[in-house]
Amino acid sequence: MRQSKRGQVEPFIAMDVLRMAAEAEAAGRDIVHMEVGQPSTSAPKAAKRRLAEALEHQPMGYTVALGLPYLREGIARLYKRWYNVDLDPARVVITSGSSGAFQLAFTALFDAGDKVGLGEPGYPSYRQILKALSIEPVGIPTEAQNRYQPTPEEIPDDLQGLIVASPGNPSGTMLGKPELEALIEHCAARDIAFISDEIYHGLQYDARAVSALEISDDVFVINSFSKYFSMTGWRVGWMVVPESHLRTVERLAQHMFICAPHASQVAALGALESIEEMEGHVARYAESRALLLEELPKMGFTRIAPPDGAFYLYADVSELTKDSAAFAAEILESVGVAVTPGMDFDPHRGQQTIRLSYAQSPDRVAEGVRRLREFMANRKA
Amino acid sequence: MRQSKRGQVEPFIAMDVLRMAAEAEAAGRDIVHMEVGQPSTSAPKAAKRRLAEALEHQPMGYTVALGLPYLREGIARLYKRWYNVDLDPARVVITSGSSGAFQLAFTALFDAGDKVGLGEPGYPSYRQILKALSIEPVGIPTEAQNRYQPTPEEIPDDLQGLIVASPGNPSGTMLGKPELEALIEHCAARDIAFISDEIYHGLQYDARAVSALEISDDVFVINSFSKYFSMTGWRVGWMVVPESHLRTVERLAQHMFICAPHASQVAALGALESIEEMEGHVARYAESRALLLEELPKMGFTRIAPPDGAFYLYADVSELTKDSAAFAAEILESVGVAVTPGMDFDPHRGQQTIRLSYAQSPDRVAEGVRRLREFMANRKA
Repeated sequence: MRQSKRGQVEPFIAMDVLRMAAEAEAAGRDIVHMEVGQPSTSAPKAAKRRLAEALEHQPMGYTVALGLPYLREGIARLYKRWYNVDLDPARVVITSGSSGAFQLAFTALFDAGDKVGLGEPGYPSYRQILKALSIEPVGIPTEAQNRYQPTPEEIPDDLQGLIVASPGNPSGTMLGKPELEALIEHCAARDIAFISDEIYHGLQYDARAVSALEISDDVFVINSFSKYFSMTGWRVGWMVVPESHLRTVERLAQHMFICAPHASQVAALGALESIEEMEGHVARYAESRALLLEELPKMGFTRIAPPDGAFYLYADVSELTKDSAAFAAEILESVGVAVTPGMDFDPHRGQQTIRLSYAQSPDRVAEGVRRLREFMANRKA
Repeated sequence: MRQSKRGQVEPFIAMDVLRMAAEAEAAGRDIVHMEVGQPSTSAPKAAKRRLAEALEHQPMGYTVALGLPYLREGIARLYKRWYNVDLDPARVVITSGSSGAFQLAFTALFDAGDKVGLGEPGYPSYRQILKALSIEPVGIPTEAQNRYQPTPEEIPDDLQGLIVASPGNPSGTMLGKPELEALIEHCAARDIAFISDEIYHGLQYDARAVSALEISDDVFVINSFSKYFSMTGWRVGWMVVPESHLRTVERLAQHMFICAPHASQVAALGALESIEEMEGHVARYAESRALLLEELPKMGFTRIAPPDGAFYLYADVSELTKDSAAFAAEILESVGVAVTPGMDFDPHRGQQTIRLSYAQSPDRVAEGVRRLREFMANRKA
């Protein structure tokens, strides 16, 4: 049977390492997971409690396409709390994870053949979702001295859109307010639609992340309950859209998704009441991050991107290897620590980078540090 | 900010009637809902029990992109049970509802500018999802004498794909095995990808629905836990794909969805153990259907499509009105019964058709019958 051209998106190159880690575990070996992009914790207690109650009393059929009104209102209140932004709940769209939000944003904004810029390194699925929608991804190589974030001068003029993530994945780096402002203004002046991926907001350690909504209403802002609220598998996120695009996004959502999962929306209501529990998670990430930042340079990982947020550290390992996938396989094989090689994030320079996640519990991260130290010591020996 | 052309999909015309119904209810009026496309029942008891247990013990992070292995195996066993088909679980892809399955199928099979045929009347979102993906929907007007299903002679040769639904929505009509076979063979000979929407399978009253998988392995089959298993809001469905397309679909799913909602997948495991409970629902739909088929002709709805399956009756009301939307509004206004006018399903002839759903409880359907009788009597008077 026929296959489309656009369906030929790229696999995750990191899958090879993941598969090796799974095989090693199946064979009884203890593996420290510093490759995963999700918390080891479950959904917040209040989220589970809310859902357990709803299971007994509500049929949980379709919700309206834009999502449960109370949830949209709760998210609008979060913008007041986090950013002191007054947000009309009508502009909040509940989505099937940030994945669903990207699909809605891309189809609402771009036609086949349009060009959308994205920083390299970056989240690999931006590029692949764009391809699947016949939109051309345009990689913008970013520099360590710019915190691996694009600058206005680097943005080609012929784009129809730009995606920016702060904190970024894999880098964990953030854009300051002036830098974000400069990007938004540059795009607005050129009719380049600005999409701000804020999925790691809340996971911050020194300064707080700045939302694009603090700067302009004429942006698409995407966020999710997956990371800060520890609800990856629930597939519930949100998108804030300009008022001008609400009807378009609503119609697309009706047809493409009908609604986000009702049970997950109910659980998300509970998550919004769980800020204290979530801040406990952030404190544990902070502990792991501090340990890594202290120990990694001592053992030889000296070139780490500014670790502003998320639960990742992105290390340039060009002084250690020319092939990060082989390097990751070597670490896994010799000391049982899984890390992510950089090729999925940066098709050009990722052969000399790795991503280390500290999303797992502090004791596991500490164990990972112990093993990495052993690995590096043996390597020098 | 810019808007895409493809994002300008059509709204549901029926929304006006839905809004009027909601307003009437908000004003305290009792409305019989014969417009809804979902059961009034909740997820099966075992589904809720499974999830309640998992909430206490499992973190429920991401699943692998193709879904929980046990669930894929359980669905493969359903094909043995329902159709006596031996299906390799590796070919079963768990999706975010049938909506997610359509997005995966369309992007795996078709490029921008490709043409995909669909019978009219049909499920409105086929057309709109195709448009959102820059694929051209080609409407094929179907005839009452062909059970509102397309025939091989009616299929244009320049298509890249064809979507067929049996039982259909809004018609409820089914294709017999020879008719389905003729369509599949016709398409296979012309490299037209065949997509079989089997979401209403199990909701059948005289004969059993035939799966495209009984005829060929070289088809895409889409189904869901929404209708027969009464789990609309859970957004969990599945797709059976040819082995040749598995890797493509897996990669697309990884990037476009990451996974279907984990909690819904756990609940779906319980649903598969609930056939007895589900057959109880079918018995109640059968009761309502029998009542409608007896009473509707007596009151003047004489031209009803062969009511093979699903929980819909599709009536040609051309002898009663030239404007089905106004007709639906009149029924709602005068006796408080909401029905769906046909324009969303058939942009050409839907002004003279309505869809009646009997997905609600038998006592509510009986109340609807009483009110419709009153409406028709007053109309003649």
